[in-house]
Amino acid sequence: MARARDEGEPRFGEFGAIERWLRPLARTLPGALDLTDDAGWLALPPGRILVAAKDAMVEGRHYFPGEPPEQVARKLLRVNLSDLAAMAATPVAYLLALAVPGPDAGEWMRRFAAGLAQDQARYGVALLGGDTVGTDGPAVMSLTLLGHAPAAERLLTRGGARPGDDVWVSGTIGDAALAVEGGYGRIDLALLGLDEAACAAVEARRLLPEPRLALGSALAGIATACADVSDGLPADLGHIAETSGVDIRMRVDLVPLSPAARRVVSAGAGLAPVAWTGGDDYELVFTAPPAARRAVMMQGTRVGVAVTRIGQVTGQAMGRGRVVLADAGGPIVAGGQHGHVHF
Amino acid sequence: MARARDEGEPRFGEFGAIERWLRPLARTLPGALDLTDDAGWLALPPGRILVAAKDAMVEGRHYFPGEPPEQVARKLLRVNLSDLAAMAATPVAYLLALAVPGPDAGEWMRRFAAGLAQDQARYGVALLGGDTVGTDGPAVMSLTLLGHAPAAERLLTRGGARPGDDVWVSGTIGDAALAVEGGYGRIDLALLGLDEAACAAVEARRLLPEPRLALGSALAGIATACADVSDGLPADLGHIAETSGVDIRMRVDLVPLSPAARRVVSAGAGLAPVAWTGGDDYELVFTAPPAARRAVMMQGTRVGVAVTRIGQVTGQAMGRGRVVLADAGGPIVAGGQHGHVHF
Repeated sequence: MARARDEGEPRFGEFGAIERWLRPLARTLPGALDLTDDAGWLALPPGRILVAAKDAMVEGRHYFPGEPPEQVARKLLRVNLSDLAAMAATPVAYLLALAVPGPDAGEWMRRFAAGLAQDQARYGVALLGGDTVGTDGPAVMSLTLLGHAPAAERLLTRGGARPGDDVWVSGTIGDAALAVEGGYGRIDLALLGLDEAACAAVEARRLLPEPRLALGSALAGIATACADVSDGLPADLGHIAETSGVDIRMRVDLVPLSPAARRVVSAGAGLAPVAWTGGDDYELVFTAPPAARRAVMMQGTRVGVAVTRIGQVTGQAMGRGRVVLADAGGPIVAGGQHGHVHF
Repeated sequence: MARARDEGEPRFGEFGAIERWLRPLARTLPGALDLTDDAGWLALPPGRILVAAKDAMVEGRHYFPGEPPEQVARKLLRVNLSDLAAMAATPVAYLLALAVPGPDAGEWMRRFAAGLAQDQARYGVALLGGDTVGTDGPAVMSLTLLGHAPAAERLLTRGGARPGDDVWVSGTIGDAALAVEGGYGRIDLALLGLDEAACAAVEARRLLPEPRLALGSALAGIATACADVSDGLPADLGHIAETSGVDIRMRVDLVPLSPAARRVVSAGAGLAPVAWTGGDDYELVFTAPPAARRAVMMQGTRVGVAVTRIGQVTGQAMGRGRVVLADAGGPIVAGGQHGHVHF
């Protein structure tokens, strides 16, 4: 862990927090050197290439202030795991940068580390290093996830979609977006027909997304392009369209919703677009040639994740690749950027 | 680049900034995929291990508010390069997480990227990926630097110092600390005898540290332990003492000061400890057996960096390794933690 100069007057030394809460997270990685150094090493399996992702979260922007640090930590790890899943890579280790305010930083750190410990075991990753600093603003944290993959040609990227490909999505879409709307008080999930258990399930999708690592790996060599659904299905498909230079038609009526989301959508007129344009689901959206339909279904079954066809790559793009939203009756919205625009 | 959900109302989209200012920084790395993806790949030279460091900086804590973004960017990159230098590793690529406030985020980003572009060329690294988000607090940024080294056994760590080893430091110490004191208005470098050019040189040491990459690599197989001087010489030697389980005597009268620092110290009673306990120099402090003295000197000469013996590993530690400060007359302060303590 690095100790850059800090002229603030924090309540306790970085070393105390590192030793107590973070060091146990590094125990299984010899290259983490018990976090005694400013850098760590990692030996990749022979012949594999490194794959790295780095996502940041800001209190009050990416999660509600006051959310349990355990959950914030697990979400930060999982959104990065989702990035590696979408590339068909195998995660191994992560580095962490935490800027945490105030006198409660120690307790916050303890709980944050507890959340990481829980998910580390689940996903087979460990802490390699990082930095902890103080801040006078909201908590800001970033995680760099390191993993490996067999070869660059086997990686799933956003750039390989071809005209005629099917568009697929894993799992169900919309729960996280509805939970966000509920969290802001813009909708009331109970009034819309969800019982307590269903509300909790919807909220859990927002708090603890499930990175589709097994599915991502299973799709290597089958899918032509892949992204995780973080900005919303049309926006993330838009990234594939743009990077691949193709136009995509997405059938909104085919987007798989959870039973809870279906209930909410049927109860609240106008909530369907919230469900299928919202982000934070961290499902995989991918393209594959029609000849691979059976292979895609088999891999989904094998890893226990539903896969649903929701559209088609309609052709090479004239200019910038676009996503056209349609239902059974034809196009409903022509769109470029549908997701959340932010700096 | 990842786009986690953001409920703020920023002035412009993440994609605009990425495309305009950050994408050119990724051009030389095929695995950066033009920043079109949430993750990137990197093929290490065969047989090498990955080395990774991650440092964070916060506006108002690690740099003064209003400092030019170009310099902040270069310092962020360089402190990470310094971490890899201290491990004798070769840097290759970096990931970036930027949380930037306010309506000027775009212009700030442009200038930040310009600083990175300048130093990328100098150090042979390029941008692999990362994340940009908004914040309502001070700017918070972290950089994850990736590099490689021949083997774990060849890495320099803090854990290999042995009784009888000499303690060495590169370059000169104290300029950065004096510049920080000057920046806070606690001392007046001009009144202490520095002309304008000397003041600028001292300030440059704080703003743009020079990572000792060539020296670090040259010391692989010669030095037994190594750290960069970020927290201050006694504190960073303390890390070596503690990790190696040894006691160290550091001769404060042998610490090499720049001509400017020597002048300030001779003019201001009590400023000597500021010079030799202050941080931010990013020189290398390392241990090596007496039999390697000639080899250390030769490598210093070869890479054009002065190396000075400033102490000795006096023995195995009884309990926690400690640093004892001494001058020609004997011990002057017995110390554990001398650097800046921060969260």
